[in-house]
Amino acid sequence: MPDLNSSNSTGAGRWGSCPLPEGGGELITLAHGSGGRLTQRLIDDIFVPAFGKASLASLEDAATIDFPGSELAFTTDSFVIHPLFFSGGDIGQLAISGTVNDLAMVGSEPLFLSVALVIEEGLPIAVLKQVVASMAETARAAGVQVVTGDTKVVERGKGDGVFITTSGIGRRISPRPVGSQQICKGDALIVSGDVGRHGMAVMVAREGLKLEGELQSDVASLNGLVTELFNAGIAVHCMRDLTRGGLATAAVELAEACQLSINLNQPAIPVSRPVQAACELLGLDPHFVANEGRFLCLLPADQVDRALAILHSHPLGANAAVIGSVDDTHPGWAMLESAYGTRQKLSRLAGDQLPRIC
Amino acid sequence: MPDLNSSNSTGAGRWGSCPLPEGGGELITLAHGSGGRLTQRLIDDIFVPAFGKASLASLEDAATIDFPGSELAFTTDSFVIHPLFFSGGDIGQLAISGTVNDLAMVGSEPLFLSVALVIEEGLPIAVLKQVVASMAETARAAGVQVVTGDTKVVERGKGDGVFITTSGIGRRISPRPVGSQQICKGDALIVSGDVGRHGMAVMVAREGLKLEGELQSDVASLNGLVTELFNAGIAVHCMRDLTRGGLATAAVELAEACQLSINLNQPAIPVSRPVQAACELLGLDPHFVANEGRFLCLLPADQVDRALAILHSHPLGANAAVIGSVDDTHPGWAMLESAYGTRQKLSRLAGDQLPRIC
Repeated sequence: MPDLNSSNSTGAGRWGSCPLPEGGGELITLAHGSGGRLTQRLIDDIFVPAFGKASLASLEDAATIDFPGSELAFTTDSFVIHPLFFSGGDIGQLAISGTVNDLAMVGSEPLFLSVALVIEEGLPIAVLKQVVASMAETARAAGVQVVTGDTKVVERGKGDGVFITTSGIGRRISPRPVGSQQICKGDALIVSGDVGRHGMAVMVAREGLKLEGELQSDVASLNGLVTELFNAGIAVHCMRDLTRGGLATAAVELAEACQLSINLNQPAIPVSRPVQAACELLGLDPHFVANEGRFLCLLPADQVDRALAILHSHPLGANAAVIGSVDDTHPGWAMLESAYGTRQKLSRLAGDQLPRIC
Repeated sequence: MPDLNSSNSTGAGRWGSCPLPEGGGELITLAHGSGGRLTQRLIDDIFVPAFGKASLASLEDAATIDFPGSELAFTTDSFVIHPLFFSGGDIGQLAISGTVNDLAMVGSEPLFLSVALVIEEGLPIAVLKQVVASMAETARAAGVQVVTGDTKVVERGKGDGVFITTSGIGRRISPRPVGSQQICKGDALIVSGDVGRHGMAVMVAREGLKLEGELQSDVASLNGLVTELFNAGIAVHCMRDLTRGGLATAAVELAEACQLSINLNQPAIPVSRPVQAACELLGLDPHFVANEGRFLCLLPADQVDRALAILHSHPLGANAAVIGSVDDTHPGWAMLESAYGTRQKLSRLAGDQLPRIC
């Protein structure tokens, strides 16, 4: 089992469950963050090969971009996940997909990303390379360009491997605004797939648990799937990716924002068997567990069949399901209805089930 | 003298030289980063009052913005400065001005900023409030809007107080492109003020040194001053703010990028007496020390008088001086000429004079 707790370990084990080159590798030093010769070497040897010279011209203070459109979306997220590698993904993939998804959720096409790294002294350069390669591959697959970046290094014990902050710019592609203010009474709720996978995959990697069945993170870039919904003319009212706090917290936030009642039908919510098993073992509620490739879509009930057909024909929406509806019985509340017909008001969790899962 | 070294201290001393409410204050916990109830309270109690509800609508995944123009500038920087407070500024001011300046340096008007915080468990909430208030005030003064943000919390000993990543979007205002590729033989070099203040102010705060004379950071937002140059029709070829690595590293980078010779005239470079004294005491070269409110401006020699008149009439350019010129005697090299006429090739530093000054 990897030594996940020792803060003095510099081997691969500390960073996660992914096999990494062992021993003797070069480590990040404070000088790599100095803006001097070693910073330049990181840029030349790692960032430029990964993201391209034209795009990541570190020589200017900012990237200048021709922007095609008049309305843009802008978002930022820091990723501090521990461990850096987990079943189904790593921090690099997460940092790109997370920001891509935030842009997609407001009805925009993600175009340009920035990447800022805060690296802890002692991180093996091989680990950094692997994370950067993963970012580059995820960006390429999602059709977004990393156009600017920054690197800082902090002393051992003042960070944790690497923290990544990605910001992103997108161009609006939805014909109408998309957001919580557009939610209407009578809307249906579709979830794009089974919930709770990301949080449980990270937890399993962190605790070194052995479970039957495959438990992989759902981390994925959702912009392709969202674009298909818009291309088909689906009148999406609101979308929300189900990250920190999971499906239940998203439902609470949306209910508060639109001041309608968001009703979830528990038996309809897809949860995979490995996630269910891991949640039972650890005493967690899968509805509050984070996802990184699942979203909630609120739309007029008469468009559900067409939307489901589109979702089901895409690998990331294969398990999409209608899981609830919007009415005005309890304005501002999210309600969970069980198989037995009992209804329960959902609340934000007071504390943190699973810290540092993103 | 503040206890700057104890990593277990939760009092104000650990965070810097600024007086802070003592004892008994509420501390940041992991639950503040959970996306649950305490995260919401941070947003409601600290971020919304500081940045405004309309702008920082945490309810959507991304901010949507009407963008006035067709060419945008995009930049990102992480700030990991230690200590958080120093003479003349703090990490909040630095995080806003640093990103504002990066946008200004490429000839754009900074408009929209994002702020992502990675907070170490145990940070006093009073410290966070002070940093956020400083960010809000700096943004207001610079005329930029903070439109989106993110907060993560890491365990004690996995961070250092707070790291801030700001990204920014600007709109091009320069009639021509501005950058290292526009530098021409015959250009003059103007520096907007005396150099080395920020790095030395941080060093003094960190080491608890007592020096004669006032040594304050030069941290400042330069966009107002830069706009005045463009409004007056000055044909700026290139600008560079003199952050990590200072004036000398900027000169090396520009020389490499334009493949001309960047010649600095040492006696003309303004260095204040307190900076000179602190550098001598610590064995540092002020030309390599970071600034956060100074920039180098390269422009045709026949525009120097008009540019200097504009700079001198602005508080941030009062000590602006012509400090060198561009020719093709040593393509790709930056040269420093001493008072005795000797010339020396400048190189990037191998290591780090002053880690974590930004």
